[in-house]
Amino acid sequence: MSSPLLISRLVVIGAGLIGGSFALALKRAGLVGEVVGISRKPETLQQAKQRGVIDRIGAYDKVSFDGADLVLVATPVGQMGKVFAAIAPLVPREAVVTDGGSTKQDVIAFAREHFAGTLDRFVPAHPISGTEKSGPGAAFPELYQDRRVVLTPIAETSARAQALVRAAWEACGARVSEIAAEEHDAMLAAVSHLPHLLAFALVDEFASRPSGQRIFSFSGGGFRDFTRIASSSPEMWRDIFLSNREAVSAELQRYRDKLEAVQKLLDAGDGAALEALFERSRSARERWL
Amino acid sequence: MSSPLLISRLVVIGAGLIGGSFALALKRAGLVGEVVGISRKPETLQQAKQRGVIDRIGAYDKVSFDGADLVLVATPVGQMGKVFAAIAPLVPREAVVTDGGSTKQDVIAFAREHFAGTLDRFVPAHPISGTEKSGPGAAFPELYQDRRVVLTPIAETSARAQALVRAAWEACGARVSEIAAEEHDAMLAAVSHLPHLLAFALVDEFASRPSGQRIFSFSGGGFRDFTRIASSSPEMWRDIFLSNREAVSAELQRYRDKLEAVQKLLDAGDGAALEALFERSRSARERWL
Repeated sequence: MSSPLLISRLVVIGAGLIGGSFALALKRAGLVGEVVGISRKPETLQQAKQRGVIDRIGAYDKVSFDGADLVLVATPVGQMGKVFAAIAPLVPREAVVTDGGSTKQDVIAFAREHFAGTLDRFVPAHPISGTEKSGPGAAFPELYQDRRVVLTPIAETSARAQALVRAAWEACGARVSEIAAEEHDAMLAAVSHLPHLLAFALVDEFASRPSGQRIFSFSGGGFRDFTRIASSSPEMWRDIFLSNREAVSAELQRYRDKLEAVQKLLDAGDGAALEALFERSRSARERWL
Repeated sequence: MSSPLLISRLVVIGAGLIGGSFALALKRAGLVGEVVGISRKPETLQQAKQRGVIDRIGAYDKVSFDGADLVLVATPVGQMGKVFAAIAPLVPREAVVTDGGSTKQDVIAFAREHFAGTLDRFVPAHPISGTEKSGPGAAFPELYQDRRVVLTPIAETSARAQALVRAAWEACGARVSEIAAEEHDAMLAAVSHLPHLLAFALVDEFASRPSGQRIFSFSGGGFRDFTRIASSSPEMWRDIFLSNREAVSAELQRYRDKLEAVQKLLDAGDGAALEALFERSRSARERWL
């Protein structure tokens, strides 16, 4: 690149929390020229433009992708097949394409289907750093500071494409690492997808009772934090669960087995075993933090 | 009381997060004369004194309780029977006794056993406002600001005793309400005890795997918040589960049934039903906040 900019033109598809924060961080770092935004929802684009998250409202047409160095697809993963199909004929040959999806094997399958022959430019990625909020109004440039971004490159991914995506995320303040898509999806099923399912299920369980409002009124900070992720985007999470269904189902089954064992300890009044479990859990969490 | 102070002398038994923060808040409000601290652990008392949480280190003797207006028992609930037995012959007849236990029916049973004939002075209470930290080092005067404190008075509790305890908690910034002990324990089993059990179980499930450390390394803010309560005091929570065992077991069983239903939706790939559940959950949480 002759420009001092890392990215002369960035196209962000789905200019919400993830894509919008990426654009804002690169803008603040002075590393991007123009940001073009594309979304299903006109109000998302208006809001993104108004907040300075994007510079120009784009569409699925030649002019929106002209001169693009990087295209970030940051829609719910259920949209990505359609989006890849729409952009495949529009993205300039030398542009790099990446995504921000929470599951990787399915996104890679979509890419193989629609980017056949140009897979060298595709860099699957996942910034592990959402919040329970969504939309461009929730975007902020510090979202990725010290957060982990995982790249799951495929055999075809070129070193040049991978280096550009890595540099862009590092410029956002992220710690970038690389693993295989299969391991990514298995790990995230445990540490992210399962907890979201558990939190959604717990809130719905209470909300479905006549006493629901009264139950909530007795809650404290513990419950608020435990259920924060139950305020996450329903559509985004529906897609994640459908896409990573088998891994999540396996984790859920293991957790249900664990709860069965815990209930036995509880019903037996086995205080020593419960305390030992809590102690192991607390120690593991402290080590991890 | 002839003194302008609400409480001339406060005795706090278990000068940790709950008792220590209560003492600090009353001190800051200028409503307490002297705070005497009692604990099983000498290092807790030293630390509490050093931090100015208590003014004097006390013991289970006459001189420590002389002139006390209020005695707060803020130990784990499993200790309270022993503590009540120890203080019954020491507390002046006109002093009010209250507690900070997370379960109420068992604490009331201990009081009935040890305070027979003087139950008018006993005010069972629960400040719903812990953090995952414990000990006097974690205490701070703002802990109760805008938090809920529930009183579960018994038939014998005098209006005078109840008014003093209410005034003290309100001086700490808390919103005070009154309900029956049975309802308290049932509500808290759902909204507090169950989530703690779920978080402890999840962290232990991952920690017990060979891949545990790697799993944790892929976690983000969602997992950190979801499991914050898994860093809570193992002893305190062992006591709570033993004490409120039946109510927690019933809640756990309902939640396991819910997870079974959720797993069926997941395994069937029923995206519409999952999304509807997430939407209900998100809406309920927003209404509640």
